[in-house]
Amino acid sequence: MNLEDTLLMIPGPVPVAPRILRAMSKPVIGHRGNEFGEMYASCRQTLAELFGTKNDIFILSGSGSCAMEAAVGNVIGEKDTLVAIENGKFGERFREIGERYGNVRAVKSDWTQGESIDLDKVEAALAEGAKAVSLVHNETSVGIKNPASKVGELAKKYGALFIMDGVTSIGGDDVQVDEWGVDIAVVGSQKCLGAPPGASAISVSDKAWGSMVDKPPYYMDLKSYKKSADKDLPQTPYTPAVPLFFALHEALQIIKEEGMKARIKRHEMYANAVRAAADAMNLEMFPRLNDYSKYSNTVSAMKIPAGIDDGKLRGGMKLLGIQVSGGQGSLSGKIFRIGTMGNISKRDILSTVGALEIVLQRSGVVNKMGSGLEAAGNILE
Amino acid sequence: MNLEDTLLMIPGPVPVAPRILRAMSKPVIGHRGNEFGEMYASCRQTLAELFGTKNDIFILSGSGSCAMEAAVGNVIGEKDTLVAIENGKFGERFREIGERYGNVRAVKSDWTQGESIDLDKVEAALAEGAKAVSLVHNETSVGIKNPASKVGELAKKYGALFIMDGVTSIGGDDVQVDEWGVDIAVVGSQKCLGAPPGASAISVSDKAWGSMVDKPPYYMDLKSYKKSADKDLPQTPYTPAVPLFFALHEALQIIKEEGMKARIKRHEMYANAVRAAADAMNLEMFPRLNDYSKYSNTVSAMKIPAGIDDGKLRGGMKLLGIQVSGGQGSLSGKIFRIGTMGNISKRDILSTVGALEIVLQRSGVVNKMGSGLEAAGNILE
Repeated sequence: MNLEDTLLMIPGPVPVAPRILRAMSKPVIGHRGNEFGEMYASCRQTLAELFGTKNDIFILSGSGSCAMEAAVGNVIGEKDTLVAIENGKFGERFREIGERYGNVRAVKSDWTQGESIDLDKVEAALAEGAKAVSLVHNETSVGIKNPASKVGELAKKYGALFIMDGVTSIGGDDVQVDEWGVDIAVVGSQKCLGAPPGASAISVSDKAWGSMVDKPPYYMDLKSYKKSADKDLPQTPYTPAVPLFFALHEALQIIKEEGMKARIKRHEMYANAVRAAADAMNLEMFPRLNDYSKYSNTVSAMKIPAGIDDGKLRGGMKLLGIQVSGGQGSLSGKIFRIGTMGNISKRDILSTVGALEIVLQRSGVVNKMGSGLEAAGNILE
Repeated sequence: MNLEDTLLMIPGPVPVAPRILRAMSKPVIGHRGNEFGEMYASCRQTLAELFGTKNDIFILSGSGSCAMEAAVGNVIGEKDTLVAIENGKFGERFREIGERYGNVRAVKSDWTQGESIDLDKVEAALAEGAKAVSLVHNETSVGIKNPASKVGELAKKYGALFIMDGVTSIGGDDVQVDEWGVDIAVVGSQKCLGAPPGASAISVSDKAWGSMVDKPPYYMDLKSYKKSADKDLPQTPYTPAVPLFFALHEALQIIKEEGMKARIKRHEMYANAVRAAADAMNLEMFPRLNDYSKYSNTVSAMKIPAGIDDGKLRGGMKLLGIQVSGGQGSLSGKIFRIGTMGNISKRDILSTVGALEIVLQRSGVVNKMGSGLEAAGNILE
């Protein structure tokens, strides 16, 4: 019996609120008309608030990886150098994208061990000279929030553009693009924004506009996006994914209703509840934090404890109606991750923690039932 | 009063059937699970039938332009030459994309005059040596169906890859990728397939696989798509636009129910009905056909007649609830276009022809009412 009700507690896609699904399923409209233009204008305005920026903002009809490539491919040419900070799967992706377009100086942490980034190494790499530096603000693959404002300071000190992946932070955690000096920031629709996957947004600073390459990828050419967006009512250069714009527009309405401060506080509370429950059940967090890194507020990565394997842990939760994530690449079988993003509820946190506790108890990892649930309950206001 | 019921008779996006809207609005599922994999596998199989190919097929989370760039950017490097056949806006787009990646030898027709392509010129351009030739099968900007099979013969004769934009033909007109020797073909979701905009599909021949460049755009890297699709259940390399996959899957079910032959016949009938009505109202078709070009079966382009302007013609129809398209670029104000793609009905053709007749009569262009409607009615079986 498929009731289409598996609870997605993964780091995106997230559960999509019924209001958003309904908005998405409106009859398609022409994308050169006023109705579309007004919707796009409204989305851009709200996104600018979430980004904390006065920079130009565009919506791309492509996933977060599309926006990441737009960020790199518009400013890195074959003679340019990108300092790619890598402490997880998505930092690796920035490096791989950079290698398509120019030279990359990677600053790697051993993320298979959950190691955080080292700012001294970042500074040393920037001191050698680079056009841009890339950072993943919230690295979901390891559950770490990286020190974006400090990287922004270093970028400014060495005159490099600062490219930041805010795919899983913007809309759920505090992001201040202008204050932090982020020249290009990107977000995905299916993470903290609570919309379905397939769309993304990107902000571009004046400094970045002054640094564009001649021949960026056509579909992601930010100059084309700007030309189309600068009309009386903004348009997109190519046919947009209209239903995903409908959905994103409704998702942004929900965020406005909740208020950004309340939304960040709620995300913090949920992540704290998951971590408190994990602690109470003697689960070990995966990240090895240092002075300037933090646990992610939108996804928690825990080591798979002795006495249970990945299949039993996640399979057991799936049978109870809840999907959580395993580790990516070489982390497969070693960690599991619980996403707490978007328009989820306290009830979702409780059922997730409760299911985890039951699965761990069945395998004998947890002896005394209720400690995880109690710890989570103490955090949820 | 906005009843969300404007009839889109434009060359995409097209009206989306309620079944498809409902399928699209199902709760989002994880994209690494069996349910997604089975859906993707089913879509690939049906698309292969519509393409007429045994080649690999992938679905991209991006519009037709994204797929066009994937087609060019994976095989054209900076030392390669693309022969870009251009008799409309989308042929121009292929040329522009080609210029981002390598050398382009354009074979231009004066498409501002509706001129068809010249195969002798195409052959002369190929004889100079080229890695690939690009053609838009159905050029919606001018309403012309180009001779794809003949271009395929020339490509074979000169050993060039044949890249074909089937964005507005596949699913509504006869396309035979393997028989015509098309190495890379692309289609958009929001045209003849009848799904919402934002997704596209691409087929890749063995010959094309043997000709890939080292560093294609990351988001459109066909080798990554193949690697992910070749798993037991196919996946996508990056997060797919899940709702658009739901929608495309349902749209393909509808096509299977109708049957491809019946669907092509229906599209021909609708286009014939529009052209018969135009003829009866003394409207002049825009295309200047030659021996091997044909009127498009999915969009009809007519000159705006003396006595009315673009704003009055299209504005008048909009007031009657029907959206038709104007001309693009320098054709703005000179032509108008009626799309007859996807899951539309005879009733939609009748209301469109009727509205056009009323608008033309109000401006004094048509004196005797009913001739257009009668001509269309004679065609609609």
